[in-house]
Order: sequence, then structure tokens, then C-alpha cells
Amino acid sequence: MGKFLGIDIGGTNVSFGVVNEDFSMGISENIPTADIKTPEELVAKIHARMKSELKNGLEGIGIGAPSVNHQTQQIEYAPNLAWGDIVPVKDLFASTFNLPVSVMNDANAAALGEKIFGGAKELDNFAVVTLGTGVGLGLFLNGSLYYGNNGLAGEIGHVIIRRDGREGKTGLLGSLEAYVGRDGIIETAKEKLEFSSGGSVLQKFSPSDLTPQEIFLAARKEDPVAIEVVDAVTNDLAYALAMIVNILDVGTIFLTGGITRSGNILKRKTEKYLKGYVLPNLRDKVEIRISELNEINGGILGAAAVARTGFETVK
Amino acid sequence: MGKFLGIDIGGTNVSFGVVNEDFSMGISENIPTADIKTPEELVAKIHARMKSELKNGLEGIGIGAPSVNHQTQQIEYAPNLAWGDIVPVKDLFASTFNLPVSVMNDANAAALGEKIFGGAKELDNFAVVTLGTGVGLGLFLNGSLYYGNNGLAGEIGHVIIRRDGREGKTGLLGSLEAYVGRDGIIETAKEKLEFSSGGSVLQKFSPSDLTPQEIFLAARKEDPVAIEVVDAVTNDLAYALAMIVNILDVGTIFLTGGITRSGNILKRKTEKYLKGYVLPNLRDKVEIRISELNEINGGILGAAAVARTGFETVK
Repeated sequence: MGKFLGIDIGGTNVSFGVVNEDFSMGISENIPTADIKTPEELVAKIHARMKSELKNGLEGIGIGAPSVNHQTQQIEYAPNLAWGDIVPVKDLFASTFNLPVSVMNDANAAALGEKIFGGAKELDNFAVVTLGTGVGLGLFLNGSLYYGNNGLAGEIGHVIIRRDGREGKTGLLGSLEAYVGRDGIIETAKEKLEFSSGGSVLQKFSPSDLTPQEIFLAARKEDPVAIEVVDAVTNDLAYALAMIVNILDVGTIFLTGGITRSGNILKRKTEKYLKGYVLPNLRDKVEIRISELNEINGGILGAAAVARTGFETVK
Repeated sequence: MGKFLGIDIGGTNVSFGVVNEDFSMGISENIPTADIKTPEELVAKIHARMKSELKNGLEGIGIGAPSVNHQTQQIEYAPNLAWGDIVPVKDLFASTFNLPVSVMNDANAAALGEKIFGGAKELDNFAVVTLGTGVGLGLFLNGSLYYGNNGLAGEIGHVIIRRDGREGKTGLLGSLEAYVGRDGIIETAKEKLEFSSGGSVLQKFSPSDLTPQEIFLAARKEDPVAIEVVDAVTNDLAYALAMIVNILDVGTIFLTGGITRSGNILKRKTEKYLKGYVLPNLRDKVEIRISELNEINGGILGAAAVARTGFETVK
């Protein structure tokens, strides 16, 4: 099957690495997304760092990115990237690397990675929800990745969970991302800290240092303000997951991304709140699982799976 | 292809009729659901009325009903039917009629009917939302009916649209059905009438005579209270439809059921509210349409399509 370069473009980091024939990972690297000013710079930086690999038989490049239109192979109107409205990712990488390039929505790439490398090998209907700067959804339905009528399915981050809620980056009011995305979680923490009378370990962080991971870790250590934040976040997340369950009866929902590495608290609280939103006869028919690719670099593996599998053989 | 008996079991009426080889409909009848006390009585009544047809070469029976588990071919825990928790519809009809029987969720049957007889002949990704006693959803994805992991997909009526809202028949708080189902619309009208200072044609109805159809007709004639109700209902409906669009990018959503026969007002207002809930780049990629089978007996046609097509050839 050969060697592939997997590139995982996120709102906070761009990760990339070579995945070998035996699924082992070769060298991998990380660049903060904010350090990359243009799509051309993105391509040039990865090309420079991967130069030595190009001589070692790379067969293709797989890319996972937010807001990918599957049909055009472009990033279109990504609220969490600052590289312009339309980024023709496939063309940019193909012309610089002279290799076949496949681009997929990051959450679809995560679903494909889960199917090939992770916990979904035997599953025909499952969802992967990516929790990061944005909140994404990859759907595997009837044994195939589901792209939607215009290649735009899976916009769970922009589902409205509170009709008079916070304004998000798309102008929509009260979207899931405004509460469960990276900035949304931090905003909730700041609100709770402001109105909290007791102490909290979160107070020692300067506003720019506070991260969702730190908040979840503090909740694990029973910090009362952090627990309030985690309750609010998991309640909102469960509300959106219940939409997926009630509408699609997917059986299993995998969670992946930074905050899922904080132990059992996310899963436990999300499951608790989910029961209040899911139709009674579906309640014991859905399982929330933390992605098995979470502790390794699942984003790169998923992206490599995009290149390795190609679209048509999966569809 | 032969002749099939189509049976459409709803919370308010049970409709049934023979659909001929050329898709024309033979005799059809209607029984109020409340007049049927047990599933055995349902089978006996339909058998009695269809006796003459049984000699004329009926090849099978197709049934659309709420809360059907596609895998077990039973009605399970239907909140809008009073025939017990588990109704083994297929077995009951098959043993009395001695004919092949196929049972499908009513909204799936409507989607199949739309695909075979209606406006979805050329579509690969679409949704049908049934507006009646309950609110159902049939999904046609990647060119196939989508049943879900346990045969229970499409429970849009039980998606929560207001987290502190009215308690519905399943015990869930604030489900779509509690606002957009038949009883929910009437309850909203009663609330608005109570707090309204001006006059309304709706006041002339006794509480038991008020129906969603009358409310929508009054709104068309610019009754101010009826317009308030229709605004609330279409806003809530649009909120739930936006979930389907943002998650699934279905392209087209067909609406069917009693209140869709009240002219353009439902479609127009739903489209208006939908814009506030759908991700901007999906806004011009989704079309709301009134089912083409709406003015004829689409429920019976859809049910006959279930028998005619059989499951496996569609799946």
C-alpha cells in the first residue's frame, strides 16, 4: 500500500507526518496555525520539512481540514481559519509536491481513521465528534462515509443549541461551537470565575493562558468552578449529541480532540446529560466512546487514511 | 407488478386502499384511530372491508405506521397510539390475510412514496417530514432509505427544541412534537387566545373542535391570533429542520400532512425562519417543498410502495 503523508489542519495546530505501509508513523511535526499567514506559506513550510521524505517513495498526500467541500476539494468559508474564503487546498499541494492529493473534512477524516485504524472497524453506523477550536462531525452511515448533497454534511458545530445565545463566528446566534468550541469553553470559564465567590485554581491563569484542557484537568481535581464549567459544556454537548441520536440512531458516537484526553469526566458527564435528551427507547442503544486514536496522533492517521483509501473505494 | 393494499396508520386516522399496477388507486377508506381499541380490531376491520378485494389478486400488504422498528417489523412504544407497548403488526396482518406483509415507519414510507410516485424521483439525498398527530422524519441518503443502527432513525418529533419546555408523551421536556404536533399546535393556540386582547375567528371554536388545519386557514385569512400561532409553529419547525440541514446537507426537505394543505403560508414562513438557523453557506443549498403526494392519498401510496418495492431492492 505504500507510504503516505497525512496532514491534519486545525484551528490551533497543523500536524503532519508520514504513515508507513504497516500503519506505523514516521517523523511527524506540528506548526501553530497562527504562525501560518497564507495557504501558500502552509504548503511551503510542510514541503520544506518533508523534503527528505519525498525521496523515500511517498505515494500521496491526505489532508483533513475544517470546512472542506468534498465536491470541490477546497476549504470554503472556514470560520476557524484566516486564509481567505476559498482555499484550493488540493491544487496548492498537488502543484508543489507533484503527488496525488485527497482532501476531506477533518471530522470525516477522523471517522475514516476510526474505521480503518481505531474502534469502529466492525461498525456500519457511527459518528465521530471532533472537539477542538471548532466542533465537527463525521458520519459513517450504512457502511459508507456520508458527505451530503453538496459535500457539506456534518456541520454540528453550527447547529443552534440556544436560540437567543452567543453570537458565533458565522453570525448565527447560539451555535454549539460558541459553547463547546475552544473559545466558548474559555468564555464560559471566565463568566463563572467572575460570578464565583469561592476560590478556584483557574484564577492563577492569565486570560490568555487558560485552555479547555486546564479547565477539564481542574474539574478532575474537583475545583468547584471548573466543575461548573464542565457541567455546562457536557450538558450542551449532550444536547447536540442527542439530536444526532434521535435523528440518525447511529449506535456509537466517538469523541476525539484535546478535552477528551482529560480522563473519564467528559464521557461520564456527557452520558449523564444525554439521558435527558434522548428518546427513551434509544437510550440504551447508544454508546459514547472516547476515540481509540486519541492518545496517538489520530488526526495524521485519519488524513493518511484519506490518501490511502481514496474516496471511491470507501464510498 | 400487481396490486397491493396500502395501509397508513396514523394517530388520528387509519387510511387504507388498493393501489393498482398502473399506480392508480382503487377503493380507499378511512377509520378514526380512536374507534379502534386493539390491534386485533384494526386487522379485523380492514379485513372485513377489503374482503371483496382479496379475490381480485392482491399480491401483498404494505403498512406505514409511527414508531415502527424496521428490524422487528413491530410498532414499539408509539406515543401516539393506545394499543400497548409492542404491536406485532406484520404477524397480525400476515396471519389474517395470508399475504406477504412489509411494515415501515410512516415517515420512511412517505419518503419511499415521494421517491417512487412524487417529487423525489431524481434525488439521492432528501428528507420527508410528516406533520400530523406526531412529527416524523424519513431520510433518503446516498440513494437509499436510511433506517439507522437499530431501525429507529428519524425520531425528529422527539428532538428537544426547548430545554425547559412542555412535557411530551415520552416524558422528555420540550420536544418538537409538543409544539408542532397536532396537540401542541392546539395548545399554543389556546395559550395565545387566553392572552389575546383583540378578537379572533378561533374563538368561535369549542376547544374540542379546534384543529391545526382551521388555525392555518385562519392565518391565511389574516386572523391576528392565528398568525401568531403559525409564526410560533413555523419558527419551531424551522429550528428542527435546520438541525437536519446542518447535520446532513440533504438538499431538499419535503413537508407532508394536514397543515401543509393550507396553501403557501407554512412553506413561506418556515423558509423565512430557517435562514436564521442554517449555516450561511448551506442557506441557498436547501429547498423546502410541499410533498407532491399531499393532495392525493400519499400515505396509502407510500404504504403500497413499501409492499411493491420490498425492502431489499430499495436498501
